[in-house]
Amino acid sequence: MIFLPRRKTMRTDEHETIMRLASEQARTTMEQGFGGPFGAAIVQDGKVIAVSSNSVLKDHDPTAHAEVNAIRQAGKVLGTHDLSGCALYATGYPCPMCMSAIIWANIKTVYFACTPQEAERIGFRDDFIYRYFESGRDKEPKLVRLAQTGHDVCIKLFEEYAKNHQQVY
Amino acid sequence: MIFLPRRKTMRTDEHETIMRLASEQARTTMEQGFGGPFGAAIVQDGKVIAVSSNSVLKDHDPTAHAEVNAIRQAGKVLGTHDLSGCALYATGYPCPMCMSAIIWANIKTVYFACTPQEAERIGFRDDFIYRYFESGRDKEPKLVRLAQTGHDVCIKLFEEYAKNHQQVY
Repeated sequence: MIFLPRRKTMRTDEHETIMRLASEQARTTMEQGFGGPFGAAIVQDGKVIAVSSNSVLKDHDPTAHAEVNAIRQAGKVLGTHDLSGCALYATGYPCPMCMSAIIWANIKTVYFACTPQEAERIGFRDDFIYRYFESGRDKEPKLVRLAQTGHDVCIKLFEEYAKNHQQVY
Repeated sequence: MIFLPRRKTMRTDEHETIMRLASEQARTTMEQGFGGPFGAAIVQDGKVIAVSSNSVLKDHDPTAHAEVNAIRQAGKVLGTHDLSGCALYATGYPCPMCMSAIIWANIKTVYFACTPQEAERIGFRDDFIYRYFESGRDKEPKLVRLAQTGHDVCIKLFEEYAKNHQQVY
């Protein structure tokens, strides 16, 4: 665990210290062939509570990006899915999956090191998913086709939830 | 395991059979308080290889949506992060995190049962994240603020990857 002073504004070298942790974790797993050069760390009240990296190849899990792994780790550490007040550090600009995960986790502050262009230069392209959302997602059937089915079955399930459960998260 | 005939087009009742599996799984975990009424199934060559549901509350994991859980499960079953040729069934229209996960997994066909509007009616709102992407993400600092830091450290990591590793996924 690394403790940093609790202040509203952190110094540049403090940000870099945390980013270095993410970077070192990414280097370790990258060299083991677990995934790309992507690391992430999560900080709460000046304390690093999660450091993780991409493990897509090792875990056979296309969702195992560094940011998602760090969010999962932080959720376990804090015992909640709500990471309000935490900041996330990532060696690369988050892809839309990770950005959405960050938003679901209620993380409001993200520090990134390398740009999407720099990720693209080493072969990783996330921008096609950003473009999919920006251009109106249903208009790109080559990327993913959506169709509706089984509505009668599932709407009953939704209604049961509304009737019996209150927790919305 | 449920086996369905290998055909290019499946009958409506076959789609509904699979959606019912997703729905039943969601009902079970919903009643246990694990998460919302969201289930998902993944089918490859007419075989159901994964059935999962939302476990955000149980796992303290904001990324544990039904679709993400099903993708993780299918990846483990097949021993790869690449789910090309699979179709995904979801009781609700996928949120941007799940839609991105689907795209990363190379799943091209998605069947959903309930609409975003129906999810909203029972208290679940995903559209603010869709709007975030559609409206130009950096323009909504209240949702998430991004800043660049630690570039010098991480660009070296990216360059090392480009030099020593070839696998891009």
